[in-house]
Amino acid sequence: MIKAYAAHEPKGQLTPFEYDPGELKPNEVELDVMYCGVCHSDLSVIDNEWGFSQYPVVGGHEVVGTIRQIGSEVKSLRIGQVAGLGWHAGYCDHCRQCDTGDHNLCAKARPTIVGHHGGFADKVRAQESAVVVIPDGIDLASAGPLFCGGITVFNPLSEFAIKPTDKVAVIGIGGLGHLALQFLNAWGCEVTAFTSSEAKQQEAKSMGAHHVINSRDKAQIKQAAGEFDLIISTVAVTLDWEAYISTLAPRGRLHFVGAITEPLKISVFSLMSQQRSVSSSPVGSPATIAKMLEFAKLHDIKPVIETYSFDEINQALERLRVGDVKYRIVLKR
Amino acid sequence: MIKAYAAHEPKGQLTPFEYDPGELKPNEVELDVMYCGVCHSDLSVIDNEWGFSQYPVVGGHEVVGTIRQIGSEVKSLRIGQVAGLGWHAGYCDHCRQCDTGDHNLCAKARPTIVGHHGGFADKVRAQESAVVVIPDGIDLASAGPLFCGGITVFNPLSEFAIKPTDKVAVIGIGGLGHLALQFLNAWGCEVTAFTSSEAKQQEAKSMGAHHVINSRDKAQIKQAAGEFDLIISTVAVTLDWEAYISTLAPRGRLHFVGAITEPLKISVFSLMSQQRSVSSSPVGSPATIAKMLEFAKLHDIKPVIETYSFDEINQALERLRVGDVKYRIVLKR
Repeated sequence: MIKAYAAHEPKGQLTPFEYDPGELKPNEVELDVMYCGVCHSDLSVIDNEWGFSQYPVVGGHEVVGTIRQIGSEVKSLRIGQVAGLGWHAGYCDHCRQCDTGDHNLCAKARPTIVGHHGGFADKVRAQESAVVVIPDGIDLASAGPLFCGGITVFNPLSEFAIKPTDKVAVIGIGGLGHLALQFLNAWGCEVTAFTSSEAKQQEAKSMGAHHVINSRDKAQIKQAAGEFDLIISTVAVTLDWEAYISTLAPRGRLHFVGAITEPLKISVFSLMSQQRSVSSSPVGSPATIAKMLEFAKLHDIKPVIETYSFDEINQALERLRVGDVKYRIVLKR
Repeated sequence: MIKAYAAHEPKGQLTPFEYDPGELKPNEVELDVMYCGVCHSDLSVIDNEWGFSQYPVVGGHEVVGTIRQIGSEVKSLRIGQVAGLGWHAGYCDHCRQCDTGDHNLCAKARPTIVGHHGGFADKVRAQESAVVVIPDGIDLASAGPLFCGGITVFNPLSEFAIKPTDKVAVIGIGGLGHLALQFLNAWGCEVTAFTSSEAKQQEAKSMGAHHVINSRDKAQIKQAAGEFDLIISTVAVTLDWEAYISTLAPRGRLHFVGAITEPLKISVFSLMSQQRSVSSSPVGSPATIAKMLEFAKLHDIKPVIETYSFDEINQALERLRVGDVKYRIVLKR
């Protein structure tokens, strides 16, 4: 039996929940959970904010654990390895996307916490292809958030071939944003943080921002007209997107990694004259996760975390709900 | 004196208009106009639809002509050469965009028909860097529309590194769309035309579409889910963009070359799961225009035109206004 915490209805408290995972499938591994990050998407699924939750919901998709069991067909992983598991617990492994290493774009990719039980538990299972070994030298206590928050902001740098000479900006300095600043700084870019929080201005600089723009100050935004080759938006609320688009350089891209439920309103004219793009992407492929871990190790990039025990999970979620976490919560067994 | 046709107020008839262009600037050339295409943007500027027209408006930005005068500093052009002039009559020539060949993205690029007198005239002037020599073997009578309509749809193929193995689609089979189909077919791609006109289905195939989707038929659109690496929208009206986005493949792009005045409404979720983009671009650089002309010559790509004389210009514009031109009007002297 696996001992987990589950929500049984939207906005429900998490309660202890045991389930029998059945026999381990040939292509699966089972991890003993050591740490599990708490991501805003856990809340969204617990609350059924996106309309596709399946109860009971066992959240937790930023898992660090030790491989304790491997299926009969598992070839690349061994018992005893320390590995991580993120938003996806499995892929079809055989479509055009999977064949070309784009597992995260597989139409049949299976979320770890929808129709599958996640890492708010003592054990979690996942398909071999979704589990990535953590290199020696990565701090395990803070590694969990790299597997969702981290890869989500790292992926666009790799996907859009961002160059160290590019000027980049991050909207929102929270769980994702504070990692984006670190990655972009290490990538060699000139980094600007947009934040509405006076308090975060200095912190943003300490995390790698060379400049900070108060996003409530229209004059400051105007001064940045035509500046940025890439802006990564990590927020989940509607802002004045036209104002941000005006700060994009020729061929610049406004890229959304925060899930905004309201439609974006974008003027063709503001894109056209400077050939700008608007786009969005989900997490990253297992191969990109592995590259991100190597890069994070080389540059000593770490989530800034607050630690809770698993039995304090409801308090942890409540902290996230009010939005004052700095910058990511990790549950520790 | 230059003998032109000008509109003196929004929606005004064009009337004969003479102006003294003054002394030729050192970096300018003067063309004797042989042909000039009539583009929907001429109407938009004549009508001040975009709010930045400067009257009197001398339209005409798809010019084919013979170079009759060159300024004292002109190095790359010679008197007697046959050349074309498109949407831009000049650039700053010294900014970061111009320095890297992206003149069309220069913030100081000067439109041929805004604050400058265009090609609805016996002569037109432009800066050396905006005038592109037409290779021998290109049909001059139909070449004009390549300099705006043609480059506008060709530019994204080059900019976004479209591969012959990509699947592509075109929304709207008119002045721009009928050129897009020809370019994309010659590019080696599998080409789909979206059109609401039953009558244009066969014509679209004759111009290079391998498939035609009736854009009023929701079932047909649904069947194309996840198909296209690139969709070029050439229309100037609001459609159900979410439906078109659903037909994009992973990493697919919906690219707008038609100027739509209403904001686009785009859901982040429909972009995110498959890492899709929405973008727009203006015409192309002089270097890309030159490449387009070579490509058009090699593959015998030609605008399908109706020819009018310059003194029939108001009739020609009226035809465009009602929208039944097949597919582009060219004025002939």
